[in-house]
Amino acid sequence: MGTRPERVLVTGASGLIGQIVMERLADRYQLSALTRRPVEFPSHIANIEDLDAILPAFERIDAVVHLAASPAVDTPWESILPDNLIGTYNVFEAARRAGVETVVFASSNHTIGGYETDGAPDLYRLDDERAYDHTAEVRPDSLYGVSKVYGEALGRYYHDKFGLRVFNLRIGSVLADDDPRSERIASSTSLLDITPAETYARYRGTWLSQRDCAELIVRCLESTEVDWAVVYGISNNPRQFWDIGHARELLGYAPVDSAPVGDEP
Amino acid sequence: MGTRPERVLVTGASGLIGQIVMERLADRYQLSALTRRPVEFPSHIANIEDLDAILPAFERIDAVVHLAASPAVDTPWESILPDNLIGTYNVFEAARRAGVETVVFASSNHTIGGYETDGAPDLYRLDDERAYDHTAEVRPDSLYGVSKVYGEALGRYYHDKFGLRVFNLRIGSVLADDDPRSERIASSTSLLDITPAETYARYRGTWLSQRDCAELIVRCLESTEVDWAVVYGISNNPRQFWDIGHARELLGYAPVDSAPVGDEP
Repeated sequence: MGTRPERVLVTGASGLIGQIVMERLADRYQLSALTRRPVEFPSHIANIEDLDAILPAFERIDAVVHLAASPAVDTPWESILPDNLIGTYNVFEAARRAGVETVVFASSNHTIGGYETDGAPDLYRLDDERAYDHTAEVRPDSLYGVSKVYGEALGRYYHDKFGLRVFNLRIGSVLADDDPRSERIASSTSLLDITPAETYARYRGTWLSQRDCAELIVRCLESTEVDWAVVYGISNNPRQFWDIGHARELLGYAPVDSAPVGDEP
Repeated sequence: MGTRPERVLVTGASGLIGQIVMERLADRYQLSALTRRPVEFPSHIANIEDLDAILPAFERIDAVVHLAASPAVDTPWESILPDNLIGTYNVFEAARRAGVETVVFASSNHTIGGYETDGAPDLYRLDDERAYDHTAEVRPDSLYGVSKVYGEALGRYYHDKFGLRVFNLRIGSVLADDDPRSERIASSTSLLDITPAETYARYRGTWLSQRDCAELIVRCLESTEVDWAVVYGISNNPRQFWDIGHARELLGYAPVDSAPVGDEP
């Protein structure tokens, strides 16, 4: 079981969640970044497609937060292959070779997005009681979702075979302005054929505030009881169709934010 | 739901299971082959790494039996990537573009091999009662196993999104000489640290006879009730630590062979 890490490498540090992690966890750990664009931290500039190029970033690192990926749900195969399939293998393999103890992997709710595709928009209603936990059969809604199922399976393999501590976070909706009622939400990319009001209702369920996101990652990095987990990451929202009971029990995750109950901007 | 297919394309037709399928199903369907080495059937010679090159093989095809892959459990990443990850995407994508109705995908018990790694050799005992079904959390024991988890997830995506009928077969041990007591077994490749006697005991559980293998594929191709399944493929063996009850119920799979009870050659 883990000891609190000191040196933490963040891949994809210049992305949205990467920036949140760098900002909020800088006081807690000695952070470095693996990124394609320099950030205000010790940075290794390399493409995760290239295993040899990224290896030096993993030296003397205690834990990796692996966020680098094409993050859009409609990413085409041509980017999924290098960014998500090859890149995630390279990160786990580099971590193994360097003797890194812990990998926190940014998985996604899109590993089980098929349930939402079927269930929307009723699934978003406050009185709907359906909820999906980590035992739900995977139903990726996209090649992006497939790539995250694969990343979780890689994590399981590296955990079972080589003893890495691996935490797969099925992250909900983290927003640049941290506001689940932002007017920008109505025009966000989605695979779903839903109205703006239904989109607000969706975020009432899927929102993960920036501080809850950072807190969940800390709970993984500092877990002393658990060395393998698949958990969902949402705030303490009024409607929860992804189960966070498992994250609460396993990791002591205790989200402090909650999306508003209404479904208007 | 499906109608009985007429034109069936077999990828990897020159491999072990490919040869079995071509031989045993030639009377039942109009078979063609996608292969790197010509076989005695109408053959498209192409590498599944190359989507454009394989597309013509899928024209006017009713069903695909997708066997092409690096089949060894210890296959390194350098082959897993083109043969299993890229190749399987290309096959599903080519099937979709050509309007193929059904894909039978050769998955593997190595998707859950971690349970066997932990449980062997006691797991092989006739009086051990552990059994793993399609709902068991995946625990790939190898990059090969990871590639099969990924292939199953791709299948789920193509099923949910595009309506393909997809059958994922977690195939047990199909043997060239069809003999689960062959002396060759003791020297077969394995990730497990087990004795020759334990290896025979293993095959008492994992053997899939060639005719049961062909029969299981027919049951998938001709299923009228089901258009998505993950099932294990073993014969009616005296020890079954992978559950075939689901295949029996869902597909009417009725294996006729059974490995001998003993654990000697």
